[in-house]
Amino acid sequence: MRTVRVGLIGLGTVGSGVVEILNRHRDDFRRRSGVDVELAMFADRNTQRFADLGLAPERCVTDAQAVIDDPSIDVVIELIGGTGVAREVVLAALGAGKSVVTANKALLASNGEEVMAAAEANGVDILFEASVGGGIPIIGPLKHSLTSNEIQTVMGIVNGTTNYMLTRMAEDGLDYETALAEAQAKGFAEADPTADVDGLDAAAKIAILSSIAFNSRVVMSQVPAEGIRGLAPEDIAYAREMGYTIKLLAIARRAENGIDVRVHPTMITSTHPLASVNGVYNAIYVVGDAVGETMFFGEGAGSLPAASAVVGDVIEVARRIQSTCAPIVGCTCTEKLAVRDISELETEYYVRLAVADQPGVLAAVATVFGEHGVSISSVLQKRAEGGLAQIVYVTHVALEANVRSALAEIEALDVVETVAAVIRVEEL
Amino acid sequence: MRTVRVGLIGLGTVGSGVVEILNRHRDDFRRRSGVDVELAMFADRNTQRFADLGLAPERCVTDAQAVIDDPSIDVVIELIGGTGVAREVVLAALGAGKSVVTANKALLASNGEEVMAAAEANGVDILFEASVGGGIPIIGPLKHSLTSNEIQTVMGIVNGTTNYMLTRMAEDGLDYETALAEAQAKGFAEADPTADVDGLDAAAKIAILSSIAFNSRVVMSQVPAEGIRGLAPEDIAYAREMGYTIKLLAIARRAENGIDVRVHPTMITSTHPLASVNGVYNAIYVVGDAVGETMFFGEGAGSLPAASAVVGDVIEVARRIQSTCAPIVGCTCTEKLAVRDISELETEYYVRLAVADQPGVLAAVATVFGEHGVSISSVLQKRAEGGLAQIVYVTHVALEANVRSALAEIEALDVVETVAAVIRVEEL
Repeated sequence: MRTVRVGLIGLGTVGSGVVEILNRHRDDFRRRSGVDVELAMFADRNTQRFADLGLAPERCVTDAQAVIDDPSIDVVIELIGGTGVAREVVLAALGAGKSVVTANKALLASNGEEVMAAAEANGVDILFEASVGGGIPIIGPLKHSLTSNEIQTVMGIVNGTTNYMLTRMAEDGLDYETALAEAQAKGFAEADPTADVDGLDAAAKIAILSSIAFNSRVVMSQVPAEGIRGLAPEDIAYAREMGYTIKLLAIARRAENGIDVRVHPTMITSTHPLASVNGVYNAIYVVGDAVGETMFFGEGAGSLPAASAVVGDVIEVARRIQSTCAPIVGCTCTEKLAVRDISELETEYYVRLAVADQPGVLAAVATVFGEHGVSISSVLQKRAEGGLAQIVYVTHVALEANVRSALAEIEALDVVETVAAVIRVEEL
Repeated sequence: MRTVRVGLIGLGTVGSGVVEILNRHRDDFRRRSGVDVELAMFADRNTQRFADLGLAPERCVTDAQAVIDDPSIDVVIELIGGTGVAREVVLAALGAGKSVVTANKALLASNGEEVMAAAEANGVDILFEASVGGGIPIIGPLKHSLTSNEIQTVMGIVNGTTNYMLTRMAEDGLDYETALAEAQAKGFAEADPTADVDGLDAAAKIAILSSIAFNSRVVMSQVPAEGIRGLAPEDIAYAREMGYTIKLLAIARRAENGIDVRVHPTMITSTHPLASVNGVYNAIYVVGDAVGETMFFGEGAGSLPAASAVVGDVIEVARRIQSTCAPIVGCTCTEKLAVRDISELETEYYVRLAVADQPGVLAAVATVFGEHGVSISSVLQKRAEGGLAQIVYVTHVALEANVRSALAEIEALDVVETVAAVIRVEEL
């Protein structure tokens, strides 16, 4: 049995999980999977981490280039993150003929085409199961078993931080600020929570998932992302009254002339499997023309879950190297589908207005919706303090552009104080 | 691009789905996956099916042997089912150097070792994703991404027929007979429903899943199976009162000195993700030491879902053949773990007794439980007609052997009419 020598670059949360799994199971992998995976070199700028993880000093370097320059290294695990140094490291490793395993969602979502092409040009693999959904196998299933399908939809809860916050807001009535402070205190949210709460993390992940599911490159900058900062407790409560749950969903759907892809708080019927995915859990829901509905659920973050996916990929590469096979599945982006502008989206909308508490308001608003071709499915009038009433509308399926132009006009009505909330409703 | 020629044996429900998918997507697979899969030969004893599916007569044979004897056939899809002819066909195909894709759970669960060895001896693949969970990718994830884990538990709802019946019984108060009749009328249950309702189908599936998850062969005859025939509507109702849902679960757990594997109606807390898997859907829940909890959900049966998995496997084999690689993952049963007798099981138990409506009963029963080391967590007394009361117990974790001996003694008490129900409770 040939020993597959691995260089691990980046010894943070996920990296330490990788070390732990291989300490625990290297012998098991030899026996069970027929591969010998050795963590042969470690790189990190923070030398304290070498000692903390009990790594042999002669295997530790502060410069990632030393790993790439070592011809005995077969596989590089890149856990630096981001699109700066990490991109250079990944391209250099691929260029040096090493396969790469990474958890780097930003890199794949922004430079996916470049890194896949580099892997192909050098006859090596780049695997990235950990980049979406932590330990949940989803990229593997999409590239393998589900490849027999034309995928219609891939969507999911792919950010555990915001799902934890939304769960606390929905179940325990916390407001946004309190939920965020709690998530930070528990270590689920960063000091600067922007990437999570503004939906950027989820946007990167759905760019990756849709590139695979639809065989067509989607980059992060094409994904309109709306986060949960603006979400008011009353909308969560009204949603529940109407049988809906609000989740921050990353959504990609095949449409007639392209694909719709977006991230935003979404109302889904409370009986849908995604609605009961709570806390830091993630779930990805996939609909294919043959398989029908499927869902993949699990821990979307954390040291060991993400490391589970990283080591799974390393074993995959090691098996291939052991079998002296060339890479079998490379880039799958063989189509060129347009990413549609969100103004072309057709879905249902939940709209909450704060209006003057006086006759004629409903009629005035209804007229504007009607003029823009937006048909209303239900209206709920809620009384509130300060002389203002709350009116909650749910529309039938309407064109986003029409809803936006209707709401601009509605907001300008004298009787309307403000358009307090607009939340897309997804019928699943 | 080399054309991979496939012989399809068995043109029933799943076989016709395979034909449909390849009619629809053969060109897509060429483009997207870089493989050309041709359904080159079809075998079925029922020649009417050739015409029904619009197959070219010159590609159709009634004798499977003709497919095996054709040296131009690279891959055989076996969809006959069972362990008789199907076993011979699979072994002959492997012996002739053809890779095999099958949905045959009975064969894998009873003769898994034999067919895996034959594949290995002949340097070909045998893939069987469709044998468990229909279109749900579960065998792939267990053999690939999750292989980085020591799996603690694999369990699930793997029989759609009984899950449909249990859903109707729980949600709409149907009794067993009515639920069965309805399932039969809808085509979810066979005229002879034995394999489904007695848990034999689920037993085969958990034998397959546990063999992979624990890297140790489990055969169907080692799996004690209890079905849903005896399930009374009152137990479903009492379970719900106590916050439990009853599901027919196939369960395999790593234990200290082996593995526990079994199929039976099981009470699980109603907030667990498995509890909300309803209707004909299946879900497999996996706990690994690194990944934590994961769940895989989808349609567990039906023509296209099962065919999705079959064609996914065919593409997998075709990619490998296209890359001129030898099989990369063969049999993974490298360990020899004991399958423990169910008498060694330690879990909680729900017990319903029909007893004389008179003083002293509770004390008498409590004494017997106590003498056998079975400690009671909760008692509910329910009044019923005919002078008999119903008492519902939930035990703390107890040894199955002790519960059984206690119940034998309890049933013999004068004041006890009958032990009306014993249902295992799984704390997840």
